[in-house]
Amino acid sequence: MYAAIAEDECSLSQIDFDAYLAESRTLALDEIRRFVRDDSPFGAVLYDLVMDYPLRPAKGLRPALCLATCRALGGSISAALPSAAVLELYHNAFLIHDDVEDGSESRRGGRTLHAVHGASVAVNVGDAMLALAMGPLLDNVRLVGLGKALRVLQAIAQMARRTAEGQALELMWAREGASSLEDEEYVRLAESKTALYSFVTPITVGAILGGATPTQIEALGEVGRRLGVAFQIQDDLLNLMGEDEAYGKERYGDLWEGKHTLALAHMLRHAPLDRRAQAESILRKRRAPPRSTALGRVLALVERLAAEGEMSAGARRELAEGLQNVESCDAKTFGDVEFLFEQIVAQRSIEYARRVSADYAREAAASFRCLSAELPASVHRQFLWSLIDFAVHRDW
Amino acid sequence: MYAAIAEDECSLSQIDFDAYLAESRTLALDEIRRFVRDDSPFGAVLYDLVMDYPLRPAKGLRPALCLATCRALGGSISAALPSAAVLELYHNAFLIHDDVEDGSESRRGGRTLHAVHGASVAVNVGDAMLALAMGPLLDNVRLVGLGKALRVLQAIAQMARRTAEGQALELMWAREGASSLEDEEYVRLAESKTALYSFVTPITVGAILGGATPTQIEALGEVGRRLGVAFQIQDDLLNLMGEDEAYGKERYGDLWEGKHTLALAHMLRHAPLDRRAQAESILRKRRAPPRSTALGRVLALVERLAAEGEMSAGARRELAEGLQNVESCDAKTFGDVEFLFEQIVAQRSIEYARRVSADYAREAAASFRCLSAELPASVHRQFLWSLIDFAVHRDW
Repeated sequence: MYAAIAEDECSLSQIDFDAYLAESRTLALDEIRRFVRDDSPFGAVLYDLVMDYPLRPAKGLRPALCLATCRALGGSISAALPSAAVLELYHNAFLIHDDVEDGSESRRGGRTLHAVHGASVAVNVGDAMLALAMGPLLDNVRLVGLGKALRVLQAIAQMARRTAEGQALELMWAREGASSLEDEEYVRLAESKTALYSFVTPITVGAILGGATPTQIEALGEVGRRLGVAFQIQDDLLNLMGEDEAYGKERYGDLWEGKHTLALAHMLRHAPLDRRAQAESILRKRRAPPRSTALGRVLALVERLAAEGEMSAGARRELAEGLQNVESCDAKTFGDVEFLFEQIVAQRSIEYARRVSADYAREAAASFRCLSAELPASVHRQFLWSLIDFAVHRDW
Repeated sequence: MYAAIAEDECSLSQIDFDAYLAESRTLALDEIRRFVRDDSPFGAVLYDLVMDYPLRPAKGLRPALCLATCRALGGSISAALPSAAVLELYHNAFLIHDDVEDGSESRRGGRTLHAVHGASVAVNVGDAMLALAMGPLLDNVRLVGLGKALRVLQAIAQMARRTAEGQALELMWAREGASSLEDEEYVRLAESKTALYSFVTPITVGAILGGATPTQIEALGEVGRRLGVAFQIQDDLLNLMGEDEAYGKERYGDLWEGKHTLALAHMLRHAPLDRRAQAESILRKRRAPPRSTALGRVLALVERLAAEGEMSAGARRELAEGLQNVESCDAKTFGDVEFLFEQIVAQRSIEYARRVSADYAREAAASFRCLSAELPASVHRQFLWSLIDFAVHRDW
């Protein structure tokens, strides 16, 4: 397979690939620091938090894609760097808001911003990042000229809009526990949300700034769309199977949230009727709220009073049941989530999702092969090849 | 006083003033509908919610200020309308996120968006509105030319950034229950947040699009800054004294949130030491969480079990106390909020805040009088005069 995809191209070694990512990320972070500098009397309460997520361990895929595309076309780093940094800033703003919206507890090996500082602060920090992103995009007019600057602004405006649309749909699915989900709907969401904002837009922005022709921009965007769907499916699978530490997010987080994935939809389509009904009823439940300390104390108090003979055994049982409802009424239990996972394994839905992902990755490779001849040989073109190669051959 | 401010100017009658506001708002809403139109397969789950706040009863002050300033300078409605609509959209996005951040329950005579649909949906709807706002600002390049379009974009980017900075400061104050607050700090926040985004930016954007000179833009912005501070102080006072229904927000909401206002800071500076200490300890408490139904059922269960002799009187008392902590640990009570209000009344802090507000409004009037001669007589100039006049003579 590898030879068929990249017969005229050497992928980067893992070391060189990682170094390329790391260098792009360092460049983007320095650039973000430059425009997040605190020149406001109110900045101290805000800008440390703005830098929190960007400075946590991360691959920095989006700035790397933007810079590599621009440079593969013969463009300069300086032309693309502010826009690459903006893409990373947008990404981190979306992560903060997504974590609030999903009630997630951990992100990139640490506690989520809202878990540490509260949802109020987290929502506002995300808003500040979206506002900060506008400055460099306007400065692009001086840096790269009006035409390119406006096309970049339009690409990013469209990305922001369609990401919010995709998030709205996902939240609705999570709330309603939608069950008759077809693969086409999942793919449309993955295209509209992940692919557009993690792949298509970084590549498109890099292509605009690298001076690509409209045909090239269109074709590169198409590579990004297919690659993005492949990566989203793989990301969903990591959520099912990865270890917390390596993954940096909460394992089974998608099942706790009731997020619809290709594997879940496949399982629901193929599970026996009774199991499907049980799975659907679990998906309609809320995510479990965090355990309240005060409530824990009352539970302990009930036990003590019962032990001291201050209440009857019947009263103790009734109270314990009632208090359980305070904490977890209609909320998923760990057993519920395990049940969903077992059904997914039983229906071989993980293998199914892997096959679909591989199909998209191979389509991306085929599209990029057609384009590749128009790009001069360079480490940047090699980096793009390697990323596609990685999606095709990702090690499970 | 009135004659001294506007000796060469007739203010609009209340009817004409209201009609001017209503007409501007209708124009802005039609324009918002035009660019919020649902051309996405995911739109149905999102765009009805985007229109929710804008369609609720509201004055529409920001689009009116923008349109009036542009037209007072001889500019056309069509030049300013998309930008005026964007300002209204931004305002509503901020309201949605602010309501989430402050945990507010009512807004414009209805329940807040997050109270009805949950914080997840509300955060995302706000993000969608911020994303939607970019389209018309980019289309401005075709509508009014590159120079004006970029200056409008810069004004709005600065507004978004400084609004987030101001919100960060306010959230920190609310969390820490800051006590040694001087008026200068309050005014700096009011300038940076409310004045900039409700007055300075709408006026500046209108002035840019109306073809004002840089000197005129600067001077008009200064009028907006002073007027904005006057209005913010008056808005805080309405929160203390207004009726829920007429006000459209929750009365005492600022005290529940522990928001620092001029009246609160004045009271803290002048109250006897013991009362000041008590007030500060109340301000450090959290806002009361909504009463949980499940918890109410447990409380009723305890009463029933005690009545049936299933537990001792001592056990009932201990449990009732413990359960009270589950609901309201470290949260403000209604009595706490009443205490704060009584101290504000006792220190005549409301009268003090009114005087400061009137000073700012008179400064705004003086600045506008200097400018007014440069603007031809028109209903638009009259509208701006009337607004300043309203701030000076607002009926308490």
